[in-house]
Formats: sequence, structure tokens, C-alpha cells
Amino acid sequence: MERHIPAKDQSIPDIVIRRLPIYRRGLRHLLLQGRVTISSNDLANEIGVTAAQIRRDLSYFGRFGKQGKGYDVPTLVEAVQQILKIDRRWDVALAGFGNLGQAIADYGGFEPSSFRIAAIFDRSPELVGQHSEHGIEVCAEAELTHVIRQMGIRMGIVAVPADQAQDVTGKMLEGGVEAILNYAPVTLHVPEGVWVREIDPISLMQSMTYYLDDDNEFSQRVEQPDSIADVAGS
Amino acid sequence: MERHIPAKDQSIPDIVIRRLPIYRRGLRHLLLQGRVTISSNDLANEIGVTAAQIRRDLSYFGRFGKQGKGYDVPTLVEAVQQILKIDRRWDVALAGFGNLGQAIADYGGFEPSSFRIAAIFDRSPELVGQHSEHGIEVCAEAELTHVIRQMGIRMGIVAVPADQAQDVTGKMLEGGVEAILNYAPVTLHVPEGVWVREIDPISLMQSMTYYLDDDNEFSQRVEQPDSIADVAGS
Repeated sequence: MERHIPAKDQSIPDIVIRRLPIYRRGLRHLLLQGRVTISSNDLANEIGVTAAQIRRDLSYFGRFGKQGKGYDVPTLVEAVQQILKIDRRWDVALAGFGNLGQAIADYGGFEPSSFRIAAIFDRSPELVGQHSEHGIEVCAEAELTHVIRQMGIRMGIVAVPADQAQDVTGKMLEGGVEAILNYAPVTLHVPEGVWVREIDPISLMQSMTYYLDDDNEFSQRVEQPDSIADVAGS
Repeated sequence: MERHIPAKDQSIPDIVIRRLPIYRRGLRHLLLQGRVTISSNDLANEIGVTAAQIRRDLSYFGRFGKQGKGYDVPTLVEAVQQILKIDRRWDVALAGFGNLGQAIADYGGFEPSSFRIAAIFDRSPELVGQHSEHGIEVCAEAELTHVIRQMGIRMGIVAVPADQAQDVTGKMLEGGVEAILNYAPVTLHVPEGVWVREIDPISLMQSMTYYLDDDNEFSQRVEQPDSIADVAGS
């Protein structure tokens, strides 16, 4: 396979990287259905993007399809998994063992997808010492930095309340975490080189209501005050 | 306030619409801290985008900042909420009352953000008749289309297993749903004019491992078979 090895400084757009897991998901779905080859049009339909988009995205990593034959599904799955580095297991630290944290800890989808919740932390004394369904004991948040450094953990999940999220993020970074999945509805501030992805169902819902037609919404104008000072006390 | 009313066919990039809830979230955070005005640089820092980006995004909807004075926080919050049409309550149908669905039904963040889980559906007879913490009774999935049409519900949340997601989506669309938040790890196929946003923590995690350095990953090449036929049976 021709495949050029991207240097770290070579910039592949992040949006391309974000689509690769969707490609993998669709390809694995096809594999389960017994498909071994697929045209780019069929793959596009399965994944919900255009065939041109798929070709452009994959071209960053090499030549995968064959003219007139399409893609070989098992080969492409394996290649995408290698590119994403999910052909191995990644240990993950989970901060927060409230309702959300417990749901995350018990979620069955991480492990088959290369992620293992290997350590759990909470600052509430009642939760420390409890176990997840998978048998992981909840440690005190005060130990987070120390424990994850010892375990060599490089990925974290933030599932604490919004006002604690930045603080616990700091502890994760100090312990060596380089990538964070953030469930707290707040923008985390992290240094360059650290990756954060957000799970924010509310923001996603709010970005759809914009598109829902209604009668006279935009006619409800806000009265503009004459100057900022006029509303400073409001 | 100068504010041009965007016609439905005027295309504001979807990525701009997706950022507006993040702006609102950051602005409300500032309001809670007692900030009444903010420079675009400070707002940019709070939200994690550039000041130029904020100005460009907001310019689609009118003129909000004042040269040298920055933004009036309460006015901008209200304007963004109007643009997003979250200055009212939206009823939402939830499909799936397993672990994930229950966590979504009991989640405290929807209602203060304009969304109310107004109806819940499941296909499992043991779950039908149960109630969410907020007192909503779980209905049979067979009634979904009928019930949401009667209630005039236009938004749905899909929290069923992947292999049931497309089917329940069809029932939602038949009942009048126009926007779906999809928690199932599968690409939903919907007609033009219907909006879908995905919550897929696994894909987000997988899009970050790509960036984590390691020693020799890209040197692990996949052997390319000579032709697709060679791997057709593998």
C-alpha cells in the first residue's frame, strides 16, 4: 500500500481527523453485514457524506480505493484504526463519579473501542472507595495527579460539575494527561498541545432549534439601548 | 440594534450556528460572575476561539459590539437566545429508557436550557408504564408516532441500541419530528430538511488518540494485497 507517513508538523485538518472515526464506524457496520468491498458512493451513503469528501479525506493518508472497484472494507478498517492509533488499548482516567460519571464508568462501549476506564476519582468522601460495575475503585480526587502519573495515563474524561471542571483538568494535566473528553458544560482552558473534545447535548439541541421554522420569531426584536451604560445596571 | 433578519434561504454556515450555543454558554458564565461588558478579546479567551472569529460569526446577525467598548453581555445573551429560538420552551420526545435513556430523562440540564422531555418511549414491556424522576410515564414505542403528533413535538432524542435507531427515527419523522439528537453509534438516514446532531463519545476519543505521540506507530505498515480479490475471503 502506498501510504505516506505524515510528519507531526504536517497539518491534516482536524475536521478530517474527526471524520475518520465515523468512517471506521460505518465500515465496521458494513463488515458486520458481510460486505467485503464497497464503492465510494455506497460508502458515502452509509456514512452520510459525499463520495468526493471520502476520497479527499483518505487521500491525506495514502491510496485506498481502486478505480472502478471501490474499497476493500477489511483493509480500510484496519488502516483507519492504525491511523487513529486505536489498534491498541488506551487507559483513561475518569474524574467524577456522580450520576453522569457512574453512567460513563458502566458504559459498555469504551472497551471494545480501545478505551479502558482504568482509574476513577471523586472528591466526595461518600463515593471514594465505591466500585464501578467493572470493579474499578473510586479514589480521592486529591490523589488524581499522583495516581495517573504512576499509571502512565494520557487520556481523561471530565464528568464533574461545571465549577470544578477547570480545577480537575489542571490536576489531570499535571499528571500527564494530553487529551480530555469534557462532559462539563464549560470551556476548558488548556495549554497548546493538549486536546479537548466536548460532549454538550444542550449546545447541540440549541444549534438545531435555530433551523426550526416558526411564524414570527425574528420579528420579536430586542430594543437596543442607546448606550452600553444604559444597561450596565440591568 | 441594527439586525438584519436572515431569510431561510440565506445560508449562514452551520458551523457558525453550532458555535452560537458555546457563545451563549460563555456569556452566561460571565453574567454569573457579574460581568456586564466584555471586550472581544476577553470573550474570545473565555470561549476559546479568536476575537476575529467571534466578530465574523456575530456579523451574520447584526452589529453587537461597540468599537472600543466591547460587548454588552446581557444584550448579547438575549440576542443569541432569540436567534437560536431558545427564548421559549421546546418539548422533546425521548426514545429509549434503558440506562442511557434514564440518565437522559433524569438529567437536570435540559429544562433550564429550554428543553423539556415531554414524552418517553420504549419497546420493552417491562419499561412501559415506569416513570422518569420528573414524573413522565414511559409509553410503548408503538404509540410514538401517534403521541408525538398529538403533542406537536418537533424534537427527538434517540437513545435506543444502534440496530433500532433507524427504525425509531422513522417513527419520529412520521410523527412530525424535525430535529434529532442521536446517541446511538450509527449514522441516521433522514430526508433533507431534518437535522441530526450526534453524541458519540467513542468517536471523539478516537479522534484524539491520533494526536498522541508514540514511538513507531506509522512504521507498522499494513501489507497491501495485490488485488481486492485476494482479501475478499479474509
